Order: sequence, then C-alpha cells, then structure tokens
Amino acid sequence: MSDESSIKVALLGFGTVGSGVYEVIESRQNQLRHLVGHPIEVVAVLVDDISKERKMGSHVFVTDDFQEILALPDLDVVVEAIVGVEPAYTYLSHAIDQGLHVVTANKELFAHKGFELQKRAKDQGVELKFEATVAGGVPIIGALTKLLQVNQVLKIEAILNGTSNYILTKMREEQISLEKALTEAQALGYAEANPTNDIEGYDALYKIMILTELLTGRKVNQNYVRCAGISTISTDDINQANLRHERIKHVGVIEISGEKVFSEVSLLTVSESHKLYSVEGVDNAVLVTGDLIGELVFQGPGAGKYPTASVMVEDLVDIYNPVSKSIKLVTKK
Amino acid sequence: MSDESSIKVALLGFGTVGSGVYEVIESRQNQLRHLVGHPIEVVAVLVDDISKERKMGSHVFVTDDFQEILALPDLDVVVEAIVGVEPAYTYLSHAIDQGLHVVTANKELFAHKGFELQKRAKDQGVELKFEATVAGGVPIIGALTKLLQVNQVLKIEAILNGTSNYILTKMREEQISLEKALTEAQALGYAEANPTNDIEGYDALYKIMILTELLTGRKVNQNYVRCAGISTISTDDINQANLRHERIKHVGVIEISGEKVFSEVSLLTVSESHKLYSVEGVDNAVLVTGDLIGELVFQGPGAGKYPTASVMVEDLVDIYNPVSKSIKLVTKK
Repeated sequence: MSDESSIKVALLGFGTVGSGVYEVIESRQNQLRHLVGHPIEVVAVLVDDISKERKMGSHVFVTDDFQEILALPDLDVVVEAIVGVEPAYTYLSHAIDQGLHVVTANKELFAHKGFELQKRAKDQGVELKFEATVAGGVPIIGALTKLLQVNQVLKIEAILNGTSNYILTKMREEQISLEKALTEAQALGYAEANPTNDIEGYDALYKIMILTELLTGRKVNQNYVRCAGISTISTDDINQANLRHERIKHVGVIEISGEKVFSEVSLLTVSESHKLYSVEGVDNAVLVTGDLIGELVFQGPGAGKYPTASVMVEDLVDIYNPVSKSIKLVTKK
Repeated sequence: MSDESSIKVALLGFGTVGSGVYEVIESRQNQLRHLVGHPIEVVAVLVDDISKERKMGSHVFVTDDFQEILALPDLDVVVEAIVGVEPAYTYLSHAIDQGLHVVTANKELFAHKGFELQKRAKDQGVELKFEATVAGGVPIIGALTKLLQVNQVLKIEAILNGTSNYILTKMREEQISLEKALTEAQALGYAEANPTNDIEGYDALYKIMILTELLTGRKVNQNYVRCAGISTISTDDINQANLRHERIKHVGVIEISGEKVFSEVSLLTVSESHKLYSVEGVDNAVLVTGDLIGELVFQGPGAGKYPTASVMVEDLVDIYNPVSKSIKLVTKK
C-alpha cells in the first residue's frame, strides 16, 4: 500500500537500466529516507509488453499505456530509461507540463530535444536531471555544474563510448581486426546487435551535443558537428601508432573561445603524456581544461546496469536534497 | 569605497595561495556578481609583515592583528590560507563564533581540528568549506559530498602529494636518486626547503585523515593511521619494479566495511591495469570505489597558485549559490 508521505516515482522502461533503478530504490529504502526525509517508492512502470514476467513487487502498477501513468494521483517523478527521441519526447513533455520532475538516461532524446525540455522544465518550475545521458557512471554533468561554477571551461576531450574504446583497446592488445573485436564486444554484452551508433560515432556525438549545450547555453545543430567513427581503423593503423608508442582514441572534443565554439567527434592519436592515453576498455573519461584549474580528468564506467542506475538515483535524490553530505555526516556522530 | 550590498571577504595570509585568491576575485568581478547576485570584495588581509610591498588595491585594509579583522563591520567570510594548526585554529574559531563563513586551505589544521570546526560551524549556522585542503585542484570533497550521496564509498586509493609523486616519477624516468629528484623538485618550487612533510608522508596523512572523517563522520586520531613516506625508496627499488612493468606509488588508502574503517598512507606497487599507474608528476588523483558505481577516478593538479585559488573561490561562490549552473545557462540564451 502506498505511503501518503512518500515520493512516488514512475519508471518508463524496465530494461537493464530501468530494472537497475528499481532494484536500487527497493534495496536502499532506509538510506534514501535518511537522505530525502521521505520514503521513495516506485509506484508504476511503463513497459512494451505487460504479459512478460518481471521481478517486481505486486504493488507496482504495470502498464503499456503512458496516459495511465499520467493519470496516477500524487505522482512526483518520472524516471525515463527508454531509447530514441519518440515517444520519449512526447512522454516527458507531458510529464513536465503536469508538474512532474524528470530524470532521464536517454542520450539521443536529450541531444536533440534537451534544450526544449530544459526550457519547458524551467517554465514549469520542475527539475530535469540528465547525468546518465553522458559518460555512463562518470558524474560529469554534476562536476561541470556544481564543482566548476567559477572556472570557464576552455576545452573538453572525452572518451564517451565504451564500446568503441573497448574495440580499439582489444585491436591493439590482441592484434585482432575490428570485426573480431566487435564480435567479442557483442558476446560480452558491450555492443548492441546493431552496433552502428557506437562504431560510427553517433553515440559519442549525442553526448558531445549535450555537453556543448550545457557549456554554452545554446542549442546545437547536429549538422554542424563533424562526426567520425572507428569503422575506418585497421589493425595496421593501430600497429603503426603502437610503433611510435602512441594509441588511437575515439574522442569527442569541445573547444570554447569567447563566443566561438567548436565541437566534433574524431579519432585522436595520443602519446603517453596525454591524459586519455591510459583510459582503456569500456571506461569513459572526460578531460576538462578550466581556465583557472588546468586539466582535470573524470574517469569511470561508461555503461552498465548499476553504474547507470546509480547516477539516476543520485539525480533523483538531488531533486529533493541538493545539499552536501559533509554537514550531515558530522551530526551522525 | 565599500559597496553596501557586496559580500565582504577577509584573507588570512597573502602568500602564493592567498594572493591567488585575491587576484581571482579581483579579475572576475562580473562573473562572480552574476553567480552570487552581489559583488565579492576583499576588504582586508592579515599578513605577518605589514611593511612588505604587495600588489593590492589601496582600499584593502592590511593588518598583522587578527582582532582588527574581527572588528571590521559587515564582514561576511574569512578565507584562510596560512599554515599550521595555530594560530589558525584560534582565528577560525573566533570567526565562526562571530557568525562568519569560512573557507580554508589549511590541511594540517583541518586534519587535527576539522571535526571541532565543523561542529562549531554547524552550531553557529555558518558554512565551513575545505575543498582546498585535499588534493589541490581536484574537487574531491565536492564530488564525494554532492555527486555520491547514494553510493556508499567502499574504498579510496589516492595520490595526494604532488611532491612525492613527482620525485618517484623522476627517479624512474631519469634513473636518478631520491636526493637528486628532490633537489630538482625544490628548484622547480614543487618542494619546500624543508621537505619532511612531503617525503615522510605527513602531508598525505593529513589529507587521508580529512577524507576519513568526511566519509565516516567520526574524528580520526592520527596515532591510529599508519604513515609511510618515500624516504626509504632506492633507485634499485624503482628499477626492480620497472623490470616487472610496475610502478611504485605513494598512496593514501581508506577502506570502509560497515562500521570498520582502515586508513593508512603507504607505498603501493601497481601494474599498468591499476588506475593510479598512469598518474605521474605533480598530479594528484583519487580513485573512489562506490558500491553501485564501481571505480571512479578524479585527477588533476595537486597544488599550484591558481588551481588552489580556483577551488577556494569555487567554495566561496558555493556558500552563496549552491545551485546548479545548468538551469542558469539555458536562460543566458
């Protein structure tokens, strides 16, 4: 039965990430209550196929009709973990218009419609959180917005696609072809059956678009961002770089100089002194150059059920408790 | 002349870091006003020798008497960048009791008296910010308190002393003795004339004490934290590790398992797969293992005038504007 004072959450999507969010919320009730002052409760889940068996409590309302989610009384937050611009954009627009807070992991949506959604959320006075759209478990959105307010970001160089980074790492380490490395990545669940978004760089492009909008406050047109993938890379290219003690990295770049902004996704050959040289496998990393602070690196898991669920639940808590833990910890004594 | 509505700051200390804070505040007035809604003004500076010539505006009150700082009308914040537990502890205690917010970079003070100062600040309802006490420009305090509220930190491994890391890097790269590497570090301004704190690990120990208190909410007794420095390391040790493709790193460790906490500063031999292997020179890096998110690395400059001033001014802004930049940026359009 639903607690009157609880924060009520609807999940859109119950795949790897959505079910991860559900498990995290269910398994740390005490901690979440301590952090936000109320229980957090998943009251509804939107799925494609309601007949499929899923591991969730019988109190959770499962539906394939988003209107039924919107019609729920006392809903507070929509946590969205589906794929593609539509129907997600329509869903989140309606949720925001109804005064619901939103947490999303949908990078394709946010790259194309994040600007509009943020404006809408601002007009409605609700929170729209999107840490999970960029760099998986690496909290780069939070770092840029909360920890670097005074610094002007001059440059970002980032490994934002764990699949392409894994493939480049394997090609070098095991002297295998891109096709073979891709097959390995697929077998391990690191790459989709259709790997186009990863291999051709679109996934990294979405993330660079999102970061560019965040840093400039201006909408980015995809057509103005050059995007190269790793599909043209041969074992020979890798070996040639290796001979020079260099590595080929698939990197998203943003350069900001006054009003001028340059963004692209491309292949970068780096030597050992470059901060992204040692970022290997499925890790993501964001190298930020601030005008005061110099070079900072934020590195971590680029994807995965719990890392992604983790940043989404952090976003959820941050809606209700944007204060620091330091003060609270001292009182715990 | 002083602006009635401005945020009035007194600097304690005008060495490398203090003068850096002054320069940053003076040079970005417009941006700071935009961020916090008021001008930020350095109205007074506490120095040892008032006869010394310094680059600062004539409106700034310079004194060697802390009581004269406390007696200033309308003071809002004390920014402390001096060294050692006393007189800093007495100064900051009085400042807090008088209702002033505090920003500090003093690691020795905060390691030994941070717990008491935080309690005092909480009782008085003022902010006490200490990002600059740990890992120089790496915003690890902010990351742990603001970005990882839901995650339980299981382990921290961190390179927290740029001097010792620089020396170990140089010993390996140039096959030179510790003494020679230290002399180089001193010539470049990376090491003090008296390098004991860096070489014997006390500087890293202070930072590990501060992080341990932050994570546990309990006061740490220095006597219970084992501390090893790099003074015992020979070129032969470095070469032996090198032959195994390993590197010796000076690492602070915190392990947390339920109520059990283990902290130490020691020498760690790491292979290439370890996330700290590639952290070289004067950089600092903190490898955080969260129970949900896995391994995150935060890396950046371990010291330096502007990196340290940068995190102190970020702290200052955060007192008055703890909200995220994302929403503001969109409205800039």
